Amino acid sequence: MANSPTGDSMTDRLVRVLETFTPARTVQTTAEIGRRAGLPSSSAHRIVAELVDAGLLERDESRGIRVGMRLWELSTRSSHALRLRQAALPFMERIQARVREHTQLAILEQDEALFLERLSAPESGANITRIAGRLPLHASSSGLVLLAHAEPEVRERVLAGRLLPLTRATIVDPGALRRTLDDIRVRGHVVAPGYIEDVSTGLAVPVRDGAGTVVAALSVVLPREAPTEPALAELHRAARDIEKALR
Amino acid sequence: MANSPTGDSMTDRLVRVLETFTPARTVQTTAEIGRRAGLPSSSAHRIVAELVDAGLLERDESRGIRVGMRLWELSTRSSHALRLRQAALPFMERIQARVREHTQLAILEQDEALFLERLSAPESGANITRIAGRLPLHASSSGLVLLAHAEPEVRERVLAGRLLPLTRATIVDPGALRRTLDDIRVRGHVVAPGYIEDVSTGLAVPVRDGAGTVVAALSVVLPREAPTEPALAELHRAARDIEKALR
Repeated sequence: MANSPTGDSMTDRLVRVLETFTPARTVQTTAEIGRRAGLPSSSAHRIVAELVDAGLLERDESRGIRVGMRLWELSTRSSHALRLRQAALPFMERIQARVREHTQLAILEQDEALFLERLSAPESGANITRIAGRLPLHASSSGLVLLAHAEPEVRERVLAGRLLPLTRATIVDPGALRRTLDDIRVRGHVVAPGYIEDVSTGLAVPVRDGAGTVVAALSVVLPREAPTEPALAELHRAARDIEKALR
Repeated sequence: MANSPTGDSMTDRLVRVLETFTPARTVQTTAEIGRRAGLPSSSAHRIVAELVDAGLLERDESRGIRVGMRLWELSTRSSHALRLRQAALPFMERIQARVREHTQLAILEQDEALFLERLSAPESGANITRIAGRLPLHASSSGLVLLAHAEPEVRERVLAGRLLPLTRATIVDPGALRRTLDDIRVRGHVVAPGYIEDVSTGLAVPVRDGAGTVVAALSVVLPREAPTEPALAELHRAARDIEKALR
């Protein structure tokens, strides 16, 4: 689209406006959006007004601006990930009903684990995952499974990058991480005790499409001291059932 | 954003591009997008390339274009509807486990019922609802509940508009529709036999926020001949529990 005097395209500006909205910041004023998106005040007012007219942003009762339902609708109704999520949901519910802990579905997106779905029992323990939230590939159980089965160039890029610790248990040594990924491909699952939060253990298995390509990771977050075998058995069983549904 | 020679804004063009993607058309070529969005070929190529660069669209393995996961992520992570959907999901699962038929959550959006969530058992019967899909307010059970509790100007606009029949049972007489809406407000639910499809009956109840405003409709789609009382009891119970969770 047409470029502004500073050379950024209108699409860039639109993305910067949308990126100012986060789970912790769902309503903003136009001035706040403009400041956080690095836009001059007049541009911010014009862009926000256009996006409100199109329904991509909405004004709430107190004239704050939030992301519009129309944007969710347009992004969701033709999403290929929605098919995966719909195929997985009945089996995620079965895990959740039996294990009664957080049950999650994630895909690899721009070198991170992006969470498509999360089911939680009211009594479930701590869990920092959010739907449409992300976690690092080297630290989360879902991310480790996705990384173990990623294209070699993605794996090498992550192994060569900064491996930041989230806890003292997070694997930050590239050699140890490479051995963990090899081990995941052999065992078909990962157990990640305390890698993301000290109090919890992540368990994850791969989910494959009809061609055998890993397209997602299915995971459960348990309290750190909980036994892992029953949940792993449920994860493996659900992954097989989702794979059948995807064929 | 900057206007094109034909006077439409870049936001308009972006929305027109996104609107060419539907549940039945998730992958398109750039030429198809341009034709369906009414854009000149050069504009279509430039806009699609920019949207791919920004991650809002993606190229698949065979160079087709589809809606990007980044757009889903940006639209979902700060969505106010996601909070409603997350609060409702455990209770929708309870209905689905007991009634074993399609269980749905819808909101009022631009004079239609927009479906945020749908849970279906493998053995459930016919149902045309889709997540991020829409149904007319006057015909669907969810739409009737939303219309009964809508702002008076929305209700009068729909009553004065064209009430198209989807089946022979759809209410298309404004007077009969007005009486049905009055009845929904008195009874607290609607039973809609065959209004959308001859073979099924929709049941719906309102869901209120902490201030008592109806923010959603919770519904079940049964085979036409099934008894309605057990499902209605589950719907009323779930609506009360969701309302508690929203407070």
